[in-house]
Amino acid sequence: MNTITDVIEPGLLQRFTEIVGGANALRPEEAGERYLSEPRDLFHGRTALVLRPGSVEEVARIVALAAESRTPIVPQGGNTGLVGGQQPRSTREILVNLSRLDKIREIDRAGRTMTVDAGAVLQTIHEAAEAEGMFFPLSLGSKGSCQIGGNLSSNAGGTGALAYGTARDLCLGIEAVLPDGSMLNGLRRLKKDNRGYDLRHLLIGAEGTLGIITGAVLKLFPAPAGREVAYAGLRSAEDMLALLAIAERHAGMHLTAFEFLPRIGMEMTLKHTDGVRDPMADPHDWYVLLEVTSHRSVEEASETMEAVLTKAFEAGIVEDAAIAQSRRQADDFWRMREEMSWAQKPEGGSIKHDVSVPVASIPQFLAEAGEAVLSAVPGARPVPFGHLGDGNIHYNVSQPIGADKPEFLARYDEVNDLVHAVVRRFDGSFSAEHGIGVLKADELARTKAGPEYEAMRAIKRALDPYEIMNPGKVIKI
Amino acid sequence: MNTITDVIEPGLLQRFTEIVGGANALRPEEAGERYLSEPRDLFHGRTALVLRPGSVEEVARIVALAAESRTPIVPQGGNTGLVGGQQPRSTREILVNLSRLDKIREIDRAGRTMTVDAGAVLQTIHEAAEAEGMFFPLSLGSKGSCQIGGNLSSNAGGTGALAYGTARDLCLGIEAVLPDGSMLNGLRRLKKDNRGYDLRHLLIGAEGTLGIITGAVLKLFPAPAGREVAYAGLRSAEDMLALLAIAERHAGMHLTAFEFLPRIGMEMTLKHTDGVRDPMADPHDWYVLLEVTSHRSVEEASETMEAVLTKAFEAGIVEDAAIAQSRRQADDFWRMREEMSWAQKPEGGSIKHDVSVPVASIPQFLAEAGEAVLSAVPGARPVPFGHLGDGNIHYNVSQPIGADKPEFLARYDEVNDLVHAVVRRFDGSFSAEHGIGVLKADELARTKAGPEYEAMRAIKRALDPYEIMNPGKVIKI
Repeated sequence: MNTITDVIEPGLLQRFTEIVGGANALRPEEAGERYLSEPRDLFHGRTALVLRPGSVEEVARIVALAAESRTPIVPQGGNTGLVGGQQPRSTREILVNLSRLDKIREIDRAGRTMTVDAGAVLQTIHEAAEAEGMFFPLSLGSKGSCQIGGNLSSNAGGTGALAYGTARDLCLGIEAVLPDGSMLNGLRRLKKDNRGYDLRHLLIGAEGTLGIITGAVLKLFPAPAGREVAYAGLRSAEDMLALLAIAERHAGMHLTAFEFLPRIGMEMTLKHTDGVRDPMADPHDWYVLLEVTSHRSVEEASETMEAVLTKAFEAGIVEDAAIAQSRRQADDFWRMREEMSWAQKPEGGSIKHDVSVPVASIPQFLAEAGEAVLSAVPGARPVPFGHLGDGNIHYNVSQPIGADKPEFLARYDEVNDLVHAVVRRFDGSFSAEHGIGVLKADELARTKAGPEYEAMRAIKRALDPYEIMNPGKVIKI
Repeated sequence: MNTITDVIEPGLLQRFTEIVGGANALRPEEAGERYLSEPRDLFHGRTALVLRPGSVEEVARIVALAAESRTPIVPQGGNTGLVGGQQPRSTREILVNLSRLDKIREIDRAGRTMTVDAGAVLQTIHEAAEAEGMFFPLSLGSKGSCQIGGNLSSNAGGTGALAYGTARDLCLGIEAVLPDGSMLNGLRRLKKDNRGYDLRHLLIGAEGTLGIITGAVLKLFPAPAGREVAYAGLRSAEDMLALLAIAERHAGMHLTAFEFLPRIGMEMTLKHTDGVRDPMADPHDWYVLLEVTSHRSVEEASETMEAVLTKAFEAGIVEDAAIAQSRRQADDFWRMREEMSWAQKPEGGSIKHDVSVPVASIPQFLAEAGEAVLSAVPGARPVPFGHLGDGNIHYNVSQPIGADKPEFLARYDEVNDLVHAVVRRFDGSFSAEHGIGVLKADELARTKAGPEYEAMRAIKRALDPYEIMNPGKVIKI
């Protein structure tokens, strides 16, 4: 099967195995789907060996041996990434899965920080914060399995970014193993620290190409006393923007979510998600899920939501609205939004995008992207949804009803190119929150060609001269 | 070309001069104090030539020529930096002052962003935002003369960081000239953008050692409808922390400032600042300046402040409090805090620190630092003040009454070492918001020695191989 060129010689494999112990070193045939497939089935991993280190020291020893032997390694967390960044691509590569590093190391109540292992699952972090009367705002659909190390490496966005920022904004300190196996101990709890270049922000979002994040200090926030969730039904994208302006004016920093989906998305969700029902009696062209919180009281959150919706009704912006009447209903409202992506699955092939544009450009972007897609693929069903308040749109396109799925998916790149061309007209991003990985590495090289890409390459070469850290992902050297 | 001596040969100087035109190229003797002195008189600049480019293209041509001729250049904004980062140090170096690039390029009201030249003065940016009903939260004592390019290059903190973060958190996009003279055009307005390594966060805080920031996209916020400012008098540092906890619980994200000063600081301010008076009848050991805002109404801000202070009185934490009764009085309250550093001047020599520790450690830090300083310099007068909510303390030490100023200042490094040793015990930072410059470059090299410093050096070497960008500042290669 493998020739001499693309395998790691047995003696070296043995040395890697000894670092973690035999029970935590899996051959590819033992590793299986859990490690070598990924959520969208776009990539199937190939590897020499899967290592599951049990300590930061073991991670450092693995990387040191990789540096010495010039063996490429691919870090992996919860394996929920959507751009293939966490998948090894050849039997020359070793997969390093961080799942065993899953501890909450420490919670500092007074300073409101939590120090965690990279392999801690996001949901576990949420629960640990809640147990102390605080909360950690980063939240995404995969929270039950994604790990904080992956969240940071990909600078995850999600639904909490509107008020609290993306993963990078929620991290005070980073511990990482650098490509030469040395340890960067940056587990600081400081709100202000100007000692030299910000390596934390460089490692965050680098998708494991500049080192392996092994631990982090996270910012916690006081748990809100009140939370209100509502759906509003609207007739146009312009009205969604107008509602955003009203909500920002009346809820200010307490507007904690402003998500949107189109009617077709609501229909798919209702059809394919168990136990949810249409929040409003009549259909609407667009739906906004709003969340407002109050640190002070249930009543304040409720008053704020009422004020926002009243103003919007008075201005004729909102056709109808439904406020969740219980925690359970609020969770259902959220579930309808979070299941959106999965609800497209039973509808056949879906060509996906993760784009951002300036918020004010959203209506025009939606119009122009729709036109571009439909003129190329008549009958295609755009389902744009996502984080309107962040300008972040998952511009997913479901296949025409009755179309052939493989035939539709064969046009993936073509449709991507069309949508991304529209994104460029608004000076937007073709990777808002999912990262680059392998899926978008060519596009990054092409569209950032010039000083910006050359600076990234220079940094990659400087820190990882032998290109052993997640090679071919993000940056091509 | 150059001899063994330390001058730039005339032909090359002429080429630099031609880029900006003779009127904007000043010989050192013409440049004078405005460019070659700095606020604390710790450094006096020496230079071959001061260039005042009038466009981004001129900046790029200057850097390209510097790269070609291996001429060191030092970027300078408003020349308000406190660590000597903006001062050239030899007649081999050319100073590039950005003051002529002072335009507000564009304000996007819907997207709430402002695109500015690097040389725009912070106060001008404030006023431009206010004219549109918005505000830009970065604020520091030198706002009337500091420039946004310098604020970003040094990741300035200031009094707005508690609620809005430091300069890096307020910047969406960066335009910069890289050390090879190429242009990095990253003037993006996107809230989410995960396209490769975050060069913006690398350039921010790099103090001009990796390139010259020439423009930026800033985040604006809706102007608050209401703002309340108060002084509280307290008996201990522990009580200040307890008040912070109460204020955070009741004001949440609307707590926009939490500054502190000790009685001795209040006394110096009252003595040496025109037109201010003690906000309370009796003296207190500690003073906290609180600010709360409301995006909704004057009443809401007022109610929030009342609630905070009532709770604090009930808990016996606050001895007395005074709420500003007018805009004018609120400004006076702020002025007393902002003049704190200058009010030390008439008191003789002051040995200054810009440190941060985890917020919960502040009382213990203050106790231990005080002990360390007083045992070395009996009679010295510590005046610790600053941004308590950020854990950022300007631990300034005034000379003993009647002591000899030069003799006291001769112990600058010794006292710094003592205070910074205490900072290290709390895993704090010896540079919270002022940066490294030349003042702290040795200390950075010493205290970060190891993987972190080596990674910084590798980045510096990769992006600026000939060390022409602000050499000797921040990182030693």
